[in-house]
Amino acid sequence: MFLAEGPQAVREALGQAGDGAGGVSLVTELFVTGQAMARHGELVAAVARTGAPVHEIGAEVMAELAQTVTPQGLLAVCPFVDVPLEQLAAARPRLVVVLANARDPGNAGTVLRTADAAGAQGVVFADASVDPYNSKCVRSSAGSLFHLPIVAGVSARATAAALRGAGLSLLAADGSAALGLDDLDKRGRLAEPTAWLFGNEAWGLPADLLALADDAVAVPIYGRAESLNIAAAAAVCLYASARAQHGGAAQSP
Amino acid sequence: MFLAEGPQAVREALGQAGDGAGGVSLVTELFVTGQAMARHGELVAAVARTGAPVHEIGAEVMAELAQTVTPQGLLAVCPFVDVPLEQLAAARPRLVVVLANARDPGNAGTVLRTADAAGAQGVVFADASVDPYNSKCVRSSAGSLFHLPIVAGVSARATAAALRGAGLSLLAADGSAALGLDDLDKRGRLAEPTAWLFGNEAWGLPADLLALADDAVAVPIYGRAESLNIAAAAAVCLYASARAQHGGAAQSP
Repeated sequence: MFLAEGPQAVREALGQAGDGAGGVSLVTELFVTGQAMARHGELVAAVARTGAPVHEIGAEVMAELAQTVTPQGLLAVCPFVDVPLEQLAAARPRLVVVLANARDPGNAGTVLRTADAAGAQGVVFADASVDPYNSKCVRSSAGSLFHLPIVAGVSARATAAALRGAGLSLLAADGSAALGLDDLDKRGRLAEPTAWLFGNEAWGLPADLLALADDAVAVPIYGRAESLNIAAAAAVCLYASARAQHGGAAQSP
Repeated sequence: MFLAEGPQAVREALGQAGDGAGGVSLVTELFVTGQAMARHGELVAAVARTGAPVHEIGAEVMAELAQTVTPQGLLAVCPFVDVPLEQLAAARPRLVVVLANARDPGNAGTVLRTADAAGAQGVVFADASVDPYNSKCVRSSAGSLFHLPIVAGVSARATAAALRGAGLSLLAADGSAALGLDDLDKRGRLAEPTAWLFGNEAWGLPADLLALADDAVAVPIYGRAESLNIAAAAAVCLYASARAQHGGAAQSP
């Protein structure tokens, strides 16, 4: 079980149940302050309608339970949502993100949100990556944790093997790679089913992880920055893939 | 004056002086712990060679001066680096970022770093945007604060007028815009000199700021995320412009 904090996360956890699509709510229990109850009455009522127990608690108790400095007064207990690696691979996804040793929860959550926006069909938290249920990661994902399949607690090596077996190319984001993102785009390679591998915020991908990929690819640096932040690099790479896969590709004539 | 913390920021502030390009170091004074002195001896020596006073201080004093939870033992006092809006406009830049009411220092610093990487020639902190010298913003910029002209303390309205006068198109990033980024790209519009306007993390750009732009443009959402984080949106928009301006454009045949 993990805690989803704030109205947005609770709404997303309630998600499929709330939008009438017939899905099952992930909220197994809700803790709410009197103030939040008054402010988000409809949301609390929607949770109550699913049969999940709703507990009104004081602000002091909420401050103890919540991980945020300024709690928003709503806290849902949710079951883990991650799926086995085999299940992700069996769905034959066309765009997947693999985080290898991504340690910063804010960055990881932002990558998850960006992956969702770019239409990725899975995010894998591999090797020593941060726990996807870390409260800061959940918060930064802005609900995307509930939107697409995630896999946790697997090795990058096993992930590479499973995704390659499912027909995906593996591209490693590496600022020092000789091959540029735009070259790959012009060759039409980004339109293929792709898994993007991103490394640690400080040291990137070591040689043994780079060796797992079909190609190492650099986002071009046009100015004087040494590198891009991992969340920015992921945004550029994932949107390049999304554009190519959705027919907006920059293929050269 | 402001404080640049850690070896990377100090190196960048020393920047032009250190790379032998004949520039002037921005470090006017350096505070360093004994431990950091031992670890970054060459850097400290390089600062000393510029004539800037170097003060060895204890770890407790550093903990008081530094804004970080785990100070890295090096703290440079630097003069403000921002330039007047008129100076930025007179340089006829081809790619500029305008932040309007961007409040989160980590996001703003990341946008500054991404703007640098994408080859932007200026970043404007307009309206009620965070102070570019906020320690978290300086840190997130990873040295880019010292790489490209920044402008602070101006209105978005005055910025729009000055940049339009310098021949730039103004594009507002707005998730609800009817016009998509790829459409604009295919029309060849992104190859033009462009200023990108980004709004507040939570509420985006209000109508009066949207009205300043030639066009409001949406980064397409392929999945179920409601929106992109501002740093991710900026990465996608700025790299679309950079690609178009550097000849990798996705212009349709």
